[in-house]
Amino acid sequence: MKDTHSSINEQEQIHLDTDHICELVAVLLPVAEDIHSHNQTSLQTTEQKQALQELIAVLHDLHPADVATLLESLPLEERMLVWKLAAPAEDGEVLLEVSDPVRETLIENMEQRELLAAVDDLDADELAELAPDLPRQVVYEALSSRDEEERAQIAAAMSFEDDQVGALMDFELVSIRADVTCEVVLRYLRRFDRLPDHTDKIFVVDEEDVLQGVLPIRSLLVSDPESLVSDVMADDVVTFRPEDDVEEAAAAFERYDLVTAPVIDDNRKLIGRITIDEMVDVIREESETDMLNMAGLREEEDLFAPVVDSVKNRWIWLAVNLCTAFIASRVIGMFEHSIEKIVALATLMPIVAGIGGNSGNQTITMIVRAMTSGQISNSQAKRLLRKEEGVALVNGLIWGSVMGIVSYFLYHSIGIGLVMVAAMTLNLLLAATVGVLIPVLMQKAGRDPALGSSVLITAVTDSGGFFIFLGLATLFLL
Amino acid sequence: MKDTHSSINEQEQIHLDTDHICELVAVLLPVAEDIHSHNQTSLQTTEQKQALQELIAVLHDLHPADVATLLESLPLEERMLVWKLAAPAEDGEVLLEVSDPVRETLIENMEQRELLAAVDDLDADELAELAPDLPRQVVYEALSSRDEEERAQIAAAMSFEDDQVGALMDFELVSIRADVTCEVVLRYLRRFDRLPDHTDKIFVVDEEDVLQGVLPIRSLLVSDPESLVSDVMADDVVTFRPEDDVEEAAAAFERYDLVTAPVIDDNRKLIGRITIDEMVDVIREESETDMLNMAGLREEEDLFAPVVDSVKNRWIWLAVNLCTAFIASRVIGMFEHSIEKIVALATLMPIVAGIGGNSGNQTITMIVRAMTSGQISNSQAKRLLRKEEGVALVNGLIWGSVMGIVSYFLYHSIGIGLVMVAAMTLNLLLAATVGVLIPVLMQKAGRDPALGSSVLITAVTDSGGFFIFLGLATLFLL
Repeated sequence: MKDTHSSINEQEQIHLDTDHICELVAVLLPVAEDIHSHNQTSLQTTEQKQALQELIAVLHDLHPADVATLLESLPLEERMLVWKLAAPAEDGEVLLEVSDPVRETLIENMEQRELLAAVDDLDADELAELAPDLPRQVVYEALSSRDEEERAQIAAAMSFEDDQVGALMDFELVSIRADVTCEVVLRYLRRFDRLPDHTDKIFVVDEEDVLQGVLPIRSLLVSDPESLVSDVMADDVVTFRPEDDVEEAAAAFERYDLVTAPVIDDNRKLIGRITIDEMVDVIREESETDMLNMAGLREEEDLFAPVVDSVKNRWIWLAVNLCTAFIASRVIGMFEHSIEKIVALATLMPIVAGIGGNSGNQTITMIVRAMTSGQISNSQAKRLLRKEEGVALVNGLIWGSVMGIVSYFLYHSIGIGLVMVAAMTLNLLLAATVGVLIPVLMQKAGRDPALGSSVLITAVTDSGGFFIFLGLATLFLL
Repeated sequence: MKDTHSSINEQEQIHLDTDHICELVAVLLPVAEDIHSHNQTSLQTTEQKQALQELIAVLHDLHPADVATLLESLPLEERMLVWKLAAPAEDGEVLLEVSDPVRETLIENMEQRELLAAVDDLDADELAELAPDLPRQVVYEALSSRDEEERAQIAAAMSFEDDQVGALMDFELVSIRADVTCEVVLRYLRRFDRLPDHTDKIFVVDEEDVLQGVLPIRSLLVSDPESLVSDVMADDVVTFRPEDDVEEAAAAFERYDLVTAPVIDDNRKLIGRITIDEMVDVIREESETDMLNMAGLREEEDLFAPVVDSVKNRWIWLAVNLCTAFIASRVIGMFEHSIEKIVALATLMPIVAGIGGNSGNQTITMIVRAMTSGQISNSQAKRLLRKEEGVALVNGLIWGSVMGIVSYFLYHSIGIGLVMVAAMTLNLLLAATVGVLIPVLMQKAGRDPALGSSVLITAVTDSGGFFIFLGLATLFLL
């Protein structure tokens, strides 16, 4: 290490070494009971003592977000041991960071006293975020230790849905009047012990708290101290209402490169602000939800959830899939007579269905992605449909011919080869059409276009593929 | 509108109305040639004249990011018309915002003079980002108009891969020495016309430009003007190296709620900084790439790409799918004899394959998602496997029994019913096992676990499902 500038503590290098932590936990797991009951005298081996010391030290150095990731990646027993040993002062932060299902497991295993201590340091908006998951008695006691203003803020934040800006706003505001000089603002700021996180602008309000504009810190720093705030402030402000959709707000943050933005009510009164860190979480979750939804998972799942919980999270789409598979099976059933005569049909039909499903999934994924980034308007749907059908036609003719020739060599029947070409082309066209229509119609109906889209498109291309292939074969080969 | 505070221009309300713009474009498309050649006298109807005026006005008000989204959502001809009419001063910004394939279409249709004008206002790091897509002559001329320092910065930025921090860093730095007072810093800042975007901290360096720490603006504002920078600055700094992976950097931004961070070289010399807006783009792209990769799309596609380009983007995974479908077909071929005897097998086999595919996709999606957020370490893989197999066993027994009973009623054969239960359970177990193993092994091999995972798992559950079901039927029913 040639680093002579030891003044900089390389925080980046304290990264999460889950594997090492797991080893330590494995050593301690046999004595977990004793650790839980603070009866550490029973740690018999030196190995256990060392492991405990090291684990506590490692956990102490971790950022709450890292502790959260660690907890999510551990099975239940191990998770509880680590949770017990993690720095209690940061418990509230960690609870905010973990996913909902994991948070439940943690809260279930905490005593009321521990929970109260954990939420004690949280801001009003953070407490509001946790409150629905906390035992009622804990919420009650936590509220009673806050002042009137904070209680009102918590109540306000809790009155909004999870997907509304109001639920994510915080109340740490610095606001000033427009008729003072920058010098006065600087002096005013100096009276704070610390400014709220992410403060990149100060909100300019009138005596009724009505938003007049914002004073970016960047402008404040380069302005003449004698100039008035009203001359320096920006009045083209991106503002949000508490009932705005968080995903749209996140898109606006991304688009306009915002760090913070004011939240105002119908009378333009300043009531809170939202910050980029919350928006980054929204963006991350939005894409993840799309991915989970496409695969037919209802919601984020605790990796180590009990089997029963996982079954519950997944059964709906499995049931839907089973119904669609049953329909596909009945479609084949219609042609049992044909299959009896030419058993090769049973062998080839999954190829037709399979390529349709794959191609349809490509189309639908592309469309869903484009919709998420707001790129698809209704007038485009027809154009897109034509284009996707063009792609399907080309792919169908190319790959259909390949498989047609292969089938001909396998079964020495020109008829089977030609039916294969036709069926594959038609099923790819069907896949393209439905791959565009499903998300477009879902969106028109106000539903999430990603929801189970993969299961739906596969259903159509399976039943459709079997019907087209077996139907053509019955018409031309029997 | 009760809004009496007209001083605030509600920027949020100028949102993108693609449908309306498309209407305007449709009116103008017949005279697009004349508009391109600036021969606007030929606009015959008043409708056309009005549409042109309105379109120009609307485009002028749009943020470059909105123009980019608009361009991405338009077919080629319409896109070129809008591009021609968009505010040329912001052309460079728009080029930075659009996706790679769309950027190519735009650059292809610009004259050298227009391109030079577009990149003229860009910062060094932005020009470096565009350079690989620009004609060589344009890059050469653009470089020759920059000074020595900027040329060096551009060369540095271009020497890194797209997925390295060095490619995303910018060079707009404000740095100070540790031995001055906050008052001096404030006076120094006041000499800037404007501070770099997102400036939330000032970098503290020694005379060799070696990073000593950072002075958060928030601390600067609340400190006593007389105190020394060295007393106020933070020395536990999250730093990056230019060769760091951008996805890891983005995760660090998310975890530590950063807005900007310094990039340093091996000697801890400050060479640039990265900002949250770039990291948000990385996070968005990362999730999108996972989604596209899972579905077997090679890369982001221009929605209205020519059919040929789309075919190229999708053919590999279609070809892979065709091979796997062919293998599945050959597996069935092994049992043609059995199917000839009991044609019901052909009808029921897709159900076994289908539910395996669906369930396997649920598992693999969950694992890939957890890997992306760094939640899976090697020591967890075995535990996860056991859990997923537990879920599969429960689902297999439940849904297998349901379909077993249905099959019994359809074909009046207890044997078929029992084979169905067994085959579905076994195929779900296979799906769970492979759904965990594919991404774990991909990651161990240093590959992206999302890559074509959906195609792979479906391949296994199809061939496996057919083999298990037809094999069991041949053993026990014939």
